[in-house]
Amino acid sequence: MLSNDVKQKLKAIVGVENFEDSKSACLVYSYDATPNFQSMPDGVISPRTTQEVSEIVKLCNEHKIPIVPRGSGSNLCGGTCPTEGGLVLLFRHMNKILEIDEENLTVTVQPGVVTLDMINAVEAKGLFYPPDPSSMKISTMGGNINENSGGLRGLKYGVTRDYVMALEVVLANGDIIRTGGKLAKDVAGYDLTRLYVGSEGTLGVITEATLKLIPIPETKKTMLALYQDLEAAAKTVSKIIANKIIPSTLEFLDQPTLKVVEDFAQIGLPTDVQAVLLIEQDGPAEVVEKDMKKMAEICHAEKAVSVKVAQTAEEAEALTTARRAALSACARLKPTTILEDATVPRSEIAKMVNGINKIAEKYKLDICTFGHAGDGNLHPTCPTDARNHEEMERVEEAFAEIFALAIELGGTITGEHGVGVMKAPYLEWKLGKEGIAAMQAIKSGLDPNNIMNPGKVFAKDSRKRLVVTR
Amino acid sequence: MLSNDVKQKLKAIVGVENFEDSKSACLVYSYDATPNFQSMPDGVISPRTTQEVSEIVKLCNEHKIPIVPRGSGSNLCGGTCPTEGGLVLLFRHMNKILEIDEENLTVTVQPGVVTLDMINAVEAKGLFYPPDPSSMKISTMGGNINENSGGLRGLKYGVTRDYVMALEVVLANGDIIRTGGKLAKDVAGYDLTRLYVGSEGTLGVITEATLKLIPIPETKKTMLALYQDLEAAAKTVSKIIANKIIPSTLEFLDQPTLKVVEDFAQIGLPTDVQAVLLIEQDGPAEVVEKDMKKMAEICHAEKAVSVKVAQTAEEAEALTTARRAALSACARLKPTTILEDATVPRSEIAKMVNGINKIAEKYKLDICTFGHAGDGNLHPTCPTDARNHEEMERVEEAFAEIFALAIELGGTITGEHGVGVMKAPYLEWKLGKEGIAAMQAIKSGLDPNNIMNPGKVFAKDSRKRLVVTR
Repeated sequence: MLSNDVKQKLKAIVGVENFEDSKSACLVYSYDATPNFQSMPDGVISPRTTQEVSEIVKLCNEHKIPIVPRGSGSNLCGGTCPTEGGLVLLFRHMNKILEIDEENLTVTVQPGVVTLDMINAVEAKGLFYPPDPSSMKISTMGGNINENSGGLRGLKYGVTRDYVMALEVVLANGDIIRTGGKLAKDVAGYDLTRLYVGSEGTLGVITEATLKLIPIPETKKTMLALYQDLEAAAKTVSKIIANKIIPSTLEFLDQPTLKVVEDFAQIGLPTDVQAVLLIEQDGPAEVVEKDMKKMAEICHAEKAVSVKVAQTAEEAEALTTARRAALSACARLKPTTILEDATVPRSEIAKMVNGINKIAEKYKLDICTFGHAGDGNLHPTCPTDARNHEEMERVEEAFAEIFALAIELGGTITGEHGVGVMKAPYLEWKLGKEGIAAMQAIKSGLDPNNIMNPGKVFAKDSRKRLVVTR
Repeated sequence: MLSNDVKQKLKAIVGVENFEDSKSACLVYSYDATPNFQSMPDGVISPRTTQEVSEIVKLCNEHKIPIVPRGSGSNLCGGTCPTEGGLVLLFRHMNKILEIDEENLTVTVQPGVVTLDMINAVEAKGLFYPPDPSSMKISTMGGNINENSGGLRGLKYGVTRDYVMALEVVLANGDIIRTGGKLAKDVAGYDLTRLYVGSEGTLGVITEATLKLIPIPETKKTMLALYQDLEAAAKTVSKIIANKIIPSTLEFLDQPTLKVVEDFAQIGLPTDVQAVLLIEQDGPAEVVEKDMKKMAEICHAEKAVSVKVAQTAEEAEALTTARRAALSACARLKPTTILEDATVPRSEIAKMVNGINKIAEKYKLDICTFGHAGDGNLHPTCPTDARNHEEMERVEEAFAEIFALAIELGGTITGEHGVGVMKAPYLEWKLGKEGIAAMQAIKSGLDPNNIMNPGKVFAKDSRKRLVVTR
């Protein structure tokens, strides 16, 4: 609960029109894209400048009021759900592209800029920002940075972290710091820039970012390879990389996913095969041509039943759009959709997909698996119904086994979705008590009053590691 | 001073043959490659395993004994000089390449592996580790990671940070943690991997690292462009990038550097021009050919007086070797060589080089400037004599002005050499009091007794910002 005194002070900072605490306003920001999860904030505030953010944070620090920075709330880990109340901080006024610097190949943005808007703006100048989370039509850059978003082009181009060069951050004490610069090289002190990337709003409020751009690839080709054998598809992935080709996209969809996607998108995807690889290469025309030919050969050698290169840009676009629609397509099946992103080393994909299928069978669940095969980042997705408690318990047990399997194979509990609330109980499986203690030492050092997005990343209780039986 | 009790315990951990505290043994590790800087350790220890490192650290933490992890001591910031005594920790037993994983494109090493040995081992398998610090013949991977080393290929390929995927670290309390994995995507908690990269041994002891590899580029071409006009050379750099070409190397040498390098290397470098750009491109043959042609055109258009592509691999190798020898060549001129690495956004190179020349003139010093023009990382180098106190004072004033200028231009006080002792007084100019306080909060959280390489990064006193007059 916010006292009247605090409310008055908040209104004095941002103007009355930029603070709300009506029930309806709070309700809107009581949930994010995470299914089956909700918690009310005490107020919603929309600062107009970094200075205002600083004043808000100082006030909250003094009164120990939680702050939850929020872009579009498209995250899937409960990361922007205000689980301990307090203020939801919106960036609807701080949503400008401040500069596109063509000499230094950078773009500087405020946190509220929508990812795709920024991508379109830089592409209009022949420049390229590779990270492409599936939510990019609605997600904001502030959210992308806080979650270290990935996407389909991660294998060749890396993730958000690899493109953040400089940040302006408001610390929990209200101090404003600037990290990094338009600098390819900078070793002046600890790498605060990358510490803040992926810190999920728990260490401060990011109020500005400078991102690295690269020249836009000359051309792009897209290819679909069909398999009746899951292992063969996985082996193709390894073999492509072992042949020293790094495609820009190397996506995997299993049969259940193909069915729901085709049902949704109606673009003529095959539904009678066990698995599909969607492969893209970009770059200079000669290189793309050569790589596509070599990759098609590898697919054939690994017993693909069909390999087809998209003949037009529209056809290619339809294929990637269908892949991007996988979550939405799955979401049509049942009221609740649990999408996870356990990630393994690329070499372990076949084992992982097989393991997921066995776990689905054991718990009598439908699990669609699709994802970024090239970087081992899979999205096992379970259409279910939150109102069916018995089934939800099975879902939870199944995903716990999936996380355990990922870790057993040298992987991680989350590749690109973040820890938030949803994965916090499992974090210890990946990091051990000692790793979590190290992270907590950093958190306490930078946010001693625990006002920055409290309740995220660190769990009150860790899940006991299950005895996995397969 | 180490008590007899502590010495006995250290010997019990590593064996008597792996602990030394004789004056001669300590003298050897009382300095590193940093000129004019020395300080005695109390002992030198060579653990054989991570477990032994953990036991040493636990003991030191209990007795508040400083620990200075050291590879080959090739750093230039006093980073491995034991300024507060204590133990120098050597990795001469922990120097193995543990694995080259061709399926996941990774190499796993112990900290004592020499950089070039690792590069040769992976290149033998057709794989490529791009970071190439000039010291790579003697530097170790542990040192590279702790300093976040750069090199000539930073513009296109990034720096050490961009290739570290996983670390094993012994924390200041003796805990052993593992960060990251063979994973292109991993957002399970804070990015400890990158926090440790470049932390200069102040947050823990890195005992193992997994590094990302990429396919080795098919081919490479090298070109030399000569200029009578410094601005024209700098403009060429910007224009190449603005033309959406990212060469693998884009090095700058000014006339004073050319003279000393040619005198040293005798390979027929021109000494009658104002500046030289050494340009390399690598990749598929067609692309290299096309890029080289376009870049030669740009050089000509920007009034290069000569543009020459190396005709053989040997000729190309001689050119890059000469560039790499710039520091050694300068070091022949006078007893003391102060080499710095102020870094600016690429667009500011001409202003920076001109500024350095004016500062050299003002303080009546010879300064050779060379460096990585493509990434704005310059190495102004001053041959001097530490015994000449009056001149040394002028050198210090001049470099203070150079750092101030770099920051004024949006740059940093160190691009790839690290802060250590030498840059610590200037760190506040880059980060502000608030930024340093944030870093100190992290340091105190992870190393409350300040035993990990104390006296580095954080200065007892910060330099007052000079009023720069130019």
